[in-house]
Amino acid sequence: MSVVAAKGFRATGVWAAIKGSGKPDLTLIVSDRPASAAGIFSANRFRGTDVELDVARLRATRGRASAIVATSGYANTMTGAAGRRDALAIGRAAARCLHVPEREVLVSSTGAIGFRLPVSRIVRSLGKAARSLAATKEAGVAAARGIMTTDTHPKLAEATFTDRGAVCTVGGIAKGVGMVAPHMATVLVYITTDAPVAPGPLHKSLVAACGDTLNAITVDGQMSTNDTVIVLANGAAMRRPLSGPGLAKFAAALHDVCAALARQLVADGEGATRLIRVTVTGALNAREAALAARAVADSALVKTMFYGRQANWGRIAQALGACGARFDPLRVTVRVGGYPAIRGGLLVKPRFELYSRLAEAEVPVAIDLGGGRARASVLTCDLTERYVRINAGYLS
Amino acid sequence: MSVVAAKGFRATGVWAAIKGSGKPDLTLIVSDRPASAAGIFSANRFRGTDVELDVARLRATRGRASAIVATSGYANTMTGAAGRRDALAIGRAAARCLHVPEREVLVSSTGAIGFRLPVSRIVRSLGKAARSLAATKEAGVAAARGIMTTDTHPKLAEATFTDRGAVCTVGGIAKGVGMVAPHMATVLVYITTDAPVAPGPLHKSLVAACGDTLNAITVDGQMSTNDTVIVLANGAAMRRPLSGPGLAKFAAALHDVCAALARQLVADGEGATRLIRVTVTGALNAREAALAARAVADSALVKTMFYGRQANWGRIAQALGACGARFDPLRVTVRVGGYPAIRGGLLVKPRFELYSRLAEAEVPVAIDLGGGRARASVLTCDLTERYVRINAGYLS
Repeated sequence: MSVVAAKGFRATGVWAAIKGSGKPDLTLIVSDRPASAAGIFSANRFRGTDVELDVARLRATRGRASAIVATSGYANTMTGAAGRRDALAIGRAAARCLHVPEREVLVSSTGAIGFRLPVSRIVRSLGKAARSLAATKEAGVAAARGIMTTDTHPKLAEATFTDRGAVCTVGGIAKGVGMVAPHMATVLVYITTDAPVAPGPLHKSLVAACGDTLNAITVDGQMSTNDTVIVLANGAAMRRPLSGPGLAKFAAALHDVCAALARQLVADGEGATRLIRVTVTGALNAREAALAARAVADSALVKTMFYGRQANWGRIAQALGACGARFDPLRVTVRVGGYPAIRGGLLVKPRFELYSRLAEAEVPVAIDLGGGRARASVLTCDLTERYVRINAGYLS
Repeated sequence: MSVVAAKGFRATGVWAAIKGSGKPDLTLIVSDRPASAAGIFSANRFRGTDVELDVARLRATRGRASAIVATSGYANTMTGAAGRRDALAIGRAAARCLHVPEREVLVSSTGAIGFRLPVSRIVRSLGKAARSLAATKEAGVAAARGIMTTDTHPKLAEATFTDRGAVCTVGGIAKGVGMVAPHMATVLVYITTDAPVAPGPLHKSLVAACGDTLNAITVDGQMSTNDTVIVLANGAAMRRPLSGPGLAKFAAALHDVCAALARQLVADGEGATRLIRVTVTGALNAREAALAARAVADSALVKTMFYGRQANWGRIAQALGACGARFDPLRVTVRVGGYPAIRGGLLVKPRFELYSRLAEAEVPVAIDLGGGRARASVLTCDLTERYVRINAGYLS
């Protein structure tokens, strides 16, 4: 059900002839009333035109939006003043079709950087898209498909909670799956909820929910220019705003949705065959814990090792030793798939049972640096020939 | 001629049954008199036992050494007290065979981390190795072969200069070619010279020579635990120590040898098909210039783009924008292969001629951040399926 699971939201995904393949490339998400809105966006210095526009609109409206238009095929990034006009034109056309104020429309795009969007084709398709808006399961999946690039399947998640007798729903869609890294990992996540949450607490809940989910994943250590997570809360489920305990339940549901989408994003990472959950404990501070977890999660040698199901634990040590975090090598303990891998600065000889564990869909790597009390966790995937082929253009 | 090009040095490479393949795995380099010695070593916290031993010996002798014993197949790293005894035993056996003081023997090893060396086989082979020491071209090549792991060919370089009528030679060997990255890039480089240089200036010249050569290359962004560059200067070419101008000529020759070896290391990077020279100018300071150059040079998306000969310049922008260096995106200029790629924050449409340029063996990427006056340069290679296959163990 994804973004249409919550009351008062409709969505669609159609083909606007941006992609040559005929696959959906235009997604619309609309609330039947103005919604509280919050977003987290790419920290890349070359961030997209659409990202800049959305940041400005959320500021101008103080966190209010009614619709999201997202296209896939080209990212409207490094397109200058012309690209800015394109984004405005698409937003304006969507506002007209949907009968909402222009500034309540958020615009996103994803795909190859530096090319102009085919604006007239997009504008022409918006009418068709508006007419196909629905709250059905099919419409939710179509919306998820409309933002896909190298994703092999649509990514959907939802969670519900009850507050003072009313059932509230949080649902979302996401796309990856290359250029996925730290600091607002991956392009385009949209979440809707019918819970009544004001823009302030909505933004706070979103930042909290992303910290160990969408901001703690990596496919290739490359921060996209268009990373966007937006949540819309239209309050259709109940009249009065959420109370303290209700807000906590909302935050938990939002976190669940972000975690589910984050997991799906990494699992569908370009060329990935398995997930690796890297957890670091015993670091001197949070910054160094994150540094160590990311160094292991982004290491090409660690990632190819897991692809090959090898027990070459020295590569984990190598990545830790080079990352800049302070620790005593003799106090480091590493467990892989639940089995001891490094202890007291020495490799532990791998047991036979370990190899079948390495073949599983998700392998946990638990690292204790033996120093302080700080911890961090990053979800990553293996590195395969397919990632190379996809990004060398040999598959497109 | 490599490490035997300079007068008074002999070398060899033999099979000590460390590698199952029967290929050379034991290298000896010997000076016929005690030589000034300097080294630069891995900064990895898990650095090798041999590295620790060499650092201690160079300190104890105040920069004096007569021989280097290097083995390939296993890195004596994360092997604890037993590994320390192994390194001492190998050094002691070499000292006995070569009739030099034990503390004048430097020991190195490279290969898989965390496994004990077959010490008795190595010790038994040292006599044979000592008897085969020679100053012939073949012996120089054998020495370079004895330290190879996934290298596809031996790496040799030399340079000469004349000071007060005497010809001095600097020659070296190196091995790579995975786990190659910043901060003393790659395992094992040995350089010999017959120039008379005291340990102090020798170390200073080595640090200067490595700054923009062996310390400015990357294959996979992974800092090895055993990176070692050692230079021995035995003064066999002339009596009096080098004068100021002579020292400058020596520094230039040493730099040439380091640059040639660095280039060979990256060109033979695991799976590499071409070199990419990333140069950053216009940065606010040297740290940010290096940060930007390394971010581009280590980007999986940039590296696969060059493998696929694609003009997807947005990936260069993405890597720059995420690296932490401060700049105004609208002032950034990038040229690839001599052709404009990014100008004024916009992608420049690639010309047809560019594509044949992308097929060449080395492609320059010149980035100007349009801010300050600092610059940096990093040599990298493309990322191919073969890198993945090598490191997933599917080729070994």
